[in-house]
Amino acid sequence: MKPFKLVSREYKKENTIVEIKSPSGSVLLGHGNCTIIAGPCAVENREDYLEISQFLKAAGAHALRGGLFKPRTSPYSFKGLGHAGLEIMQEAREITGLPLVTEIMDIRDIDILYESVDVLQVGSRNMQNFSLLEELGKTKKPVLLKRGLSATIEEWLLAAEYMLKAGNQNVILCERGIRTFEPYMRNTVDIAAVALVKELSHLPVIVDPSHATGKWKMVTPVARAAIAAGADGLMVEVHQEPDRALSDGKQSLTPENFLRLYEQVMQISTLNRSQ
Amino acid sequence: MKPFKLVSREYKKENTIVEIKSPSGSVLLGHGNCTIIAGPCAVENREDYLEISQFLKAAGAHALRGGLFKPRTSPYSFKGLGHAGLEIMQEAREITGLPLVTEIMDIRDIDILYESVDVLQVGSRNMQNFSLLEELGKTKKPVLLKRGLSATIEEWLLAAEYMLKAGNQNVILCERGIRTFEPYMRNTVDIAAVALVKELSHLPVIVDPSHATGKWKMVTPVARAAIAAGADGLMVEVHQEPDRALSDGKQSLTPENFLRLYEQVMQISTLNRSQ
Amino acid sequence: MKPFKLVSREYKKENTIVEIKSPSGSVLLGHGNCTIIAGPCAVENREDYLEISQFLKAAGAHALRGGLFKPRTSPYSFKGLGHAGLEIMQEAREITGLPLVTEIMDIRDIDILYESVDVLQVGSRNMQNFSLLEELGKTKKPVLLKRGLSATIEEWLLAAEYMLKAGNQNVILCERGIRTFEPYMRNTVDIAAVALVKELSHLPVIVDPSHATGKWKMVTPVARAAIAAGADGLMVEVHQEPDRALSDGKQSLTPENFLRLYEQVMQISTLNRSQ
Amino acid sequence: MKPFKLVSREYKKENTIVEIKSPSGSVLLGHGNCTIIAGPCAVENREDYLEISQFLKAAGAHALRGGLFKPRTSPYSFKGLGHAGLEIMQEAREITGLPLVTEIMDIRDIDILYESVDVLQVGSRNMQNFSLLEELGKTKKPVLLKRGLSATIEEWLLAAEYMLKAGNQNVILCERGIRTFEPYMRNTVDIAAVALVKELSHLPVIVDPSHATGKWKMVTPVARAAIAAGADGLMVEVHQEPDRALSDGKQSLTPENFLRLYEQVMQISTLNRSQ
Repeated sequence: MKPFKLVSREYKKENTIVEIKSPSGSVLLGHGNCTIIAGPCAVENREDYLEISQFLKAAGAHALRGGLFKPRTSPYSFKGLGHAGLEIMQEAREITGLPLVTEIMDIRDIDILYESVDVLQVGSRNMQNFSLLEELGKTKKPVLLKRGLSATIEEWLLAAEYMLKAGNQNVILCERGIRTFEPYMRNTVDIAAVALVKELSHLPVIVDPSHATGKWKMVTPVARAAIAAGADGLMVEVHQEPDRALSDGKQSLTPENFLRLYEQVMQISTLNRSQ
Repeated sequence: MKPFKLVSREYKKENTIVEIKSPSGSVLLGHGNCTIIAGPCAVENREDYLEISQFLKAAGAHALRGGLFKPRTSPYSFKGLGHAGLEIMQEAREITGLPLVTEIMDIRDIDILYESVDVLQVGSRNMQNFSLLEELGKTKKPVLLKRGLSATIEEWLLAAEYMLKAGNQNVILCERGIRTFEPYMRNTVDIAAVALVKELSHLPVIVDPSHATGKWKMVTPVARAAIAAGADGLMVEVHQEPDRALSDGKQSLTPENFLRLYEQVMQISTLNRSQ
Repeated sequence: MKPFKLVSREYKKENTIVEIKSPSGSVLLGHGNCTIIAGPCAVENREDYLEISQFLKAAGAHALRGGLFKPRTSPYSFKGLGHAGLEIMQEAREITGLPLVTEIMDIRDIDILYESVDVLQVGSRNMQNFSLLEELGKTKKPVLLKRGLSATIEEWLLAAEYMLKAGNQNVILCERGIRTFEPYMRNTVDIAAVALVKELSHLPVIVDPSHATGKWKMVTPVARAAIAAGADGLMVEVHQEPDRALSDGKQSLTPENFLRLYEQVMQISTLNRSQ
Repeated sequence: MKPFKLVSREYKKENTIVEIKSPSGSVLLGHGNCTIIAGPCAVENREDYLEISQFLKAAGAHALRGGLFKPRTSPYSFKGLGHAGLEIMQEAREITGLPLVTEIMDIRDIDILYESVDVLQVGSRNMQNFSLLEELGKTKKPVLLKRGLSATIEEWLLAAEYMLKAGNQNVILCERGIRTFEPYMRNTVDIAAVALVKELSHLPVIVDPSHATGKWKMVTPVARAAIAAGADGLMVEVHQEPDRALSDGKQSLTPENFLRLYEQVMQISTLNRSQ
């Protein structure tokens, strides 16, 4: 017997489709299309965020990302605008009609974020923050669960199991690279994990090629690989001017490169459906 | 410049000694002696816990460990007695006079644990739970900070930096093995990290050979190595009958084996001081 | 300055195309098409090898693989037919017109293998067998250099550098998964490495999804991802009846599954060229 | 059943003692004492090597190391004096009476090295060079088998099994650190492996703290830990002036620091025997 139950394919044969609500209707993640969540690493200021959001809407993105509470290795790094950035994100949501995705780090933020964003992201460092998982499991809000830095696939699925067991089926898994000995890139994307998780579980899986590689030049090839391997979508960092980003500029795509990525992955996604 | 400041040797030359208060006086961890924290993985019931605590007191242990809130990979595993076990631990504290060490997993438990235990442990999975670190940093309670499963030494020291920056100097670092490809043992003890951290930082360092190896036969050799490498102490799991332990029996020492470990590491510690 | 010279893009801008000679003409690996090397893990007997070779020829494969000298972790495992299998491979070559790829483990086999096979493979365990690399560098024979189990990309390119420095430009790099903590699959395919190596070097890169995953169900998704990420080809294990294979049956495709893989990756390759 | 046979404790209960012959009598490695092999990373010139050898003899070392054929990641690095250095080592052997340890990289060097050195070392990169292992297994010469960079303990013991199966029982295992994600040190010493291998196998085990850490400041603490964990000896790099060493200067001890290491580990070794 597998150690996970509710998340397993044995328990539920058909794919879970997570409905992400938004002003302009619902996004159905896991429904056979390629869902693209895009935006800057962090919300930095109103003007930039509204501008990039409108660009992303026009470019075809399905949801907006933006970090408000940034988990930073050093206490001296920029940690995000916090609650102050929430208004900016909501304005972008109103203008574009796109749903919002942001990371939750603290159990005490559930209430406010529950009201104001559409997908709550649990970051790698919190994948086994079981108190947080259990609280999120009591809601019906879609949760994007990133794989831990050195989490096995079994541990990742068991973290999702915590939420399903508590009552929330709306879990999206996100592969974002694992830690290995290789120093060239930030992490090593475990591309086979995408296919394996689709086999073991009914939950949808997306890939974050930006954090996974830490180098913008690798983002498009990895995004292509992810969709070819069967991922249900992508989460990608985009910034008007990556060089002046307050965090993770090196891995952010320019708008122009995002357009190229978008076109290419959609062609692969179309090919997938015809095969 | 190093990315960490307050935890560094450059910032503070002399070793930090963490004072752990207890009914029978203070334990000074980092004062040149070998401090031994021992106990079962989890508090399972009153009778067993009181019995093993009295044995450990008689055997010379300096503090009692006992898990109340167990972070478990699977939501279906035994998670500890929770608040119900707190009374049992406090009874053991009264009887033995030894200070208590237990893991805190949820920021909402700080108040109650602050009052009732002497050292709050932050487990590997929460090493980068920055909200928790910041709250603990606002107290003066000694915190035992375990190294994350795949945390670099820099990340580990920066996690400690979060607490020192928030105002709490009473941080004890605990090496408990890192995740590698080697399947024979649960984790790979990074013995050189002990010496390296003593060089980079003024904070005391202990080693947990039980979680690090996952095999009781390896506990004593690794404990010996830890003290020979310069560790300030150990955290060791001991159980009357490891075979019936509800968690981690395979890595628990019997009382008899604990006595042997104790004698051997104390001899190495004595040798250290004479060298 | 990069530590590698002759293998770098700076040194040579245009892609290296490796010409693999065969009775029915040359295969140009790295020429923009997807080159597929296929065959059983080991040559087991004449009848089976000739049968699968003819199937693969008909299915469109570009070269035949077959292990004669198998590096085995245990001295008690099946080690291949050795020189006795060479005749069988050559018969397959005559019948199908396809070039042969086999692994060389011992420097003393260079002469005989040089005469009888078309690509010499250096396995993961020998990636830093520098004596072997230097001897192969003195020939003009195409060499397929697998990435070591825990080799960084820099070490891998430097191993290739040994051969280019000695005079052999005909080097094909092969990503075959690296060793990580993840136990579900044999290795972790480093898909971003494919794109990174194409950027850093002019040498062609292929992927071996069979050894990389160790599970036949993952072979096709990973093969798809590899081509989508920009790989120049694949090396795939195929066996008539994987269940009775003497080695690596679990990762071998059936002929039927190979046909499916072939069709799918060729469609992605066609899409690549149009993008 | 374990996958290894002849190397296992089940097969042979008592510890194997490897007799290393030398002009001044035999060194019995594994006989309960701490055997120390020391010397510079590479033999660089006659004057330096003879000087350091005489120092090491006087300091109590039991065998001399010195690299002649250096496996170097880059083909552009200093690769050792090769055969030219052999005479220098033999002169040191005559003067000091100490046995010689050097690495063999190429199967074609067996004959000449067999005649002129006392222990043949198989380096990490060649741990699974099975042709080399089998040839060494046909001799009776002591072989020092370093653990591969990412070899599991099982793979390491199976590599030794290759030699025992071929007829050579004189195998010394050497833990030299494994590759992990941690960047501060060159490798991560797997200290628990020392104790585990002593339990699983009858072969003697030593530790190389110099290559394992890559930092001379960590060499003594790790050496102490190794002996405390039960290792039968050490292999340590020593250089008159580490700053001008042609390779690995950063991890070499000065003569003064070697004296300190020697005294400390011998005290721990003495304590071991009394416990």
